[in-house]
Amino acid sequence: MDFKETICALATPQGVGALAIVRVAGPNTFEIVNKIFKGKNLLKVKPNTVHFGRIMDGEVTLDEVLVSVFKAPHSFTKEDAIEISTHGSDYIVRRLLRVLIKNGCQMAQPGEFTQRAFLNGQLDLAQAEAVADLIAADSEAAHQIAINQLRGGFSKKLEILREELINFASLVELELDFGEEDVEFADRDDLKSLIIKIQGQINPLIDSFEHGNAIKEGVPVAIIGAPNAGKSTLLNTLLNEEKAIVTDIAGTTRDVIEDTVIIEGRKFRFIDTAGIRETTDVIESMGIERSIKAMQAAQIIVFLFDTEENRLFLEKLLVQYPGSKSILWVQNKIDILPEEEIRKDAIAISAKNQTGIEALSKALIETTKQLSSQDTTITNLRHFEHLTKANEALTEVLEGLDMGITGDFLAQDIRLSLHHLGEITGQITTNDLLANIFGKFCIGK
Amino acid sequence: MDFKETICALATPQGVGALAIVRVAGPNTFEIVNKIFKGKNLLKVKPNTVHFGRIMDGEVTLDEVLVSVFKAPHSFTKEDAIEISTHGSDYIVRRLLRVLIKNGCQMAQPGEFTQRAFLNGQLDLAQAEAVADLIAADSEAAHQIAINQLRGGFSKKLEILREELINFASLVELELDFGEEDVEFADRDDLKSLIIKIQGQINPLIDSFEHGNAIKEGVPVAIIGAPNAGKSTLLNTLLNEEKAIVTDIAGTTRDVIEDTVIIEGRKFRFIDTAGIRETTDVIESMGIERSIKAMQAAQIIVFLFDTEENRLFLEKLLVQYPGSKSILWVQNKIDILPEEEIRKDAIAISAKNQTGIEALSKALIETTKQLSSQDTTITNLRHFEHLTKANEALTEVLEGLDMGITGDFLAQDIRLSLHHLGEITGQITTNDLLANIFGKFCIGK
Repeated sequence: MDFKETICALATPQGVGALAIVRVAGPNTFEIVNKIFKGKNLLKVKPNTVHFGRIMDGEVTLDEVLVSVFKAPHSFTKEDAIEISTHGSDYIVRRLLRVLIKNGCQMAQPGEFTQRAFLNGQLDLAQAEAVADLIAADSEAAHQIAINQLRGGFSKKLEILREELINFASLVELELDFGEEDVEFADRDDLKSLIIKIQGQINPLIDSFEHGNAIKEGVPVAIIGAPNAGKSTLLNTLLNEEKAIVTDIAGTTRDVIEDTVIIEGRKFRFIDTAGIRETTDVIESMGIERSIKAMQAAQIIVFLFDTEENRLFLEKLLVQYPGSKSILWVQNKIDILPEEEIRKDAIAISAKNQTGIEALSKALIETTKQLSSQDTTITNLRHFEHLTKANEALTEVLEGLDMGITGDFLAQDIRLSLHHLGEITGQITTNDLLANIFGKFCIGK
Repeated sequence: MDFKETICALATPQGVGALAIVRVAGPNTFEIVNKIFKGKNLLKVKPNTVHFGRIMDGEVTLDEVLVSVFKAPHSFTKEDAIEISTHGSDYIVRRLLRVLIKNGCQMAQPGEFTQRAFLNGQLDLAQAEAVADLIAADSEAAHQIAINQLRGGFSKKLEILREELINFASLVELELDFGEEDVEFADRDDLKSLIIKIQGQINPLIDSFEHGNAIKEGVPVAIIGAPNAGKSTLLNTLLNEEKAIVTDIAGTTRDVIEDTVIIEGRKFRFIDTAGIRETTDVIESMGIERSIKAMQAAQIIVFLFDTEENRLFLEKLLVQYPGSKSILWVQNKIDILPEEEIRKDAIAISAKNQTGIEALSKALIETTKQLSSQDTTITNLRHFEHLTKANEALTEVLEGLDMGITGDFLAQDIRLSLHHLGEITGQITTNDLLANIFGKFCIGK
């Protein structure tokens, strides 16, 4: 795509540092930067080279800089591009951007560089989205998913399968052109096996979303137990700070308190809840209701108990609210419990004395590893929704084939699934979609 | 100087941005970065070129990056150096630094890159100090002084003169070797004219310090007037915020309140003071004492009055506390004063209605332009002190010459002045001095 505007923006974070990078990209990059650069003639230098010189604002030297020169199509946006490395002062950056604009640049919109990279075919849409995920990733697991996605990940596979499906779609639509004649260009058996193949790719991706999203936002771990089991003390110990108020009074915690911790490169979102018991206190019973909800929404439940009575209570709770959660049984207060009461089948800890926490952490890591057994994981709600819809449409096609449905209905469902697959990687886009995706990027990206 | 360690650091500000730059410099730069870079063989690429590739942490791809390659002595520190441009995530930067250190780098100390640049002769000490000033500059005037100093400024001139003085010093010291014999290798008249020439360079620099420092920190402008003249209202109007508490009650302001504003690229430090009048209130009289001090310390005084009585009071004050300040007479409350009371020889404003503020701003700019009539300005207290001491020693030499003093005393004073001149540009340094200067830099600079 040929963009007319040459855009510029600060690409490094604002604030005081040694260096700041201002990015320029677009058709007039060389002409504009050359006008304000004193050193070499940038119109004559080789691509992918770095040059020392001065940025001039009229007669005044603004800064001594390094410029890195990239020529189309060998740059991030596939356009001519220059990166100017200045001293890291907001004042200098502000003036440099002003001089660039005075000489014909436009301030870049948020995400405009990446959007151009996408529109010029440097990245597909899922890869472009991975750039934002990569920058935001704060744990090893989230980082790994983002870098995989940036490097192509599942979208290349999807694109190939989509191409095959497009071929079938054209054949089926060709049949329609022949109207009344009873011709069949598209082999129904081949179509069926292609769809099964595509669904074989899509389904694991759909299944991976819940856990993928949890990796990005933190795996939700609800700490559930009777009042005064030490849930808030455990939360504080895990977070290594006094987040929740701890007293000896049963029922101290009423709200659901949560915070994230990264353990061995994985992010966990620990949720401290009100202790669950029969109560007539209105506020407390509202708290208990929330505890149940947190338990149902979590991926992992830590059932925290001290006495046998409390443990049995949790077993009853599990019967009352069944689900396919991963459950860790954790016995607290081993520092004060008589030894014969300490169970062998639970993780033994003293949240107060911080003993046994390492064993609990290990158990949490093991549990999440089981949750994420597969290679490719999706973390993006948009991808999840389109995959789900594509899958539904493909199921319709399969059912249609089995029922011997006519080509026009078949074509409709195929087109729908093509649409949803195309929206993921960006073969099909709307301005709204692009604005929505790239508007969330920072300026300079 | 040959440094053994290869150092690395984040050079851009921390936080989320599109890009982050990690700098590596030192003898093993290429070997270390090449080990973790997948793309080209960095040992074989040309200097001043940029290469796309991946940073690997073992088998794991950490990021897709651009590396810029610089070869000794053509880099900032005059050593082999590489700049790695990653996606702007603190997580990636943290892991990249860890991988670099694992492969043999050391974390750079604050200012270590610039210190190496200095020790390797890339910059003199005054230029190195200008790097920090440049990054901190937040107004056009401060920026211009810093960039001049970075580009050589006065230190080159000083170095040349110092060389000439060293020649004389050796000649004078040679005379001492001949002991009793009455020889004179150093022509006394030539020495005298050299010293006068050096002082001719030094004195304007010394004189420029007060204003130079004011440019960096903001030109101090004291707002002085009788109680209820509207000083705090004027301060708030100039700052465009409600900084000082304003009431109709005379004597509301007790402390000295100050803040800086940049007007037309110049930074002003406005100082609101307690109104000056006879008072028996202890707190108020302490405030008035501070007003007088602020008035004496300021470079510009805004004498703010409304009625003729208040104006006359300020005239008396000026007689009582004379000084060579620049004074702006400003008449406030012109919105409520009868027209015949409005003077032609003062700047007429209404701080409350924000009228006349532009004229006042212009007058402030004009006044500071008069204060800074000269080209080279020093802003650094350390330079000021050494220049002052060098100047004193040179005056001693001149006096000694006039008195026909013996060569050994002459040599002593010349050496002292050489020492102080050398400390400015860094020909003479101590570890303490370097630690003090570069320790204030940020890491990565």
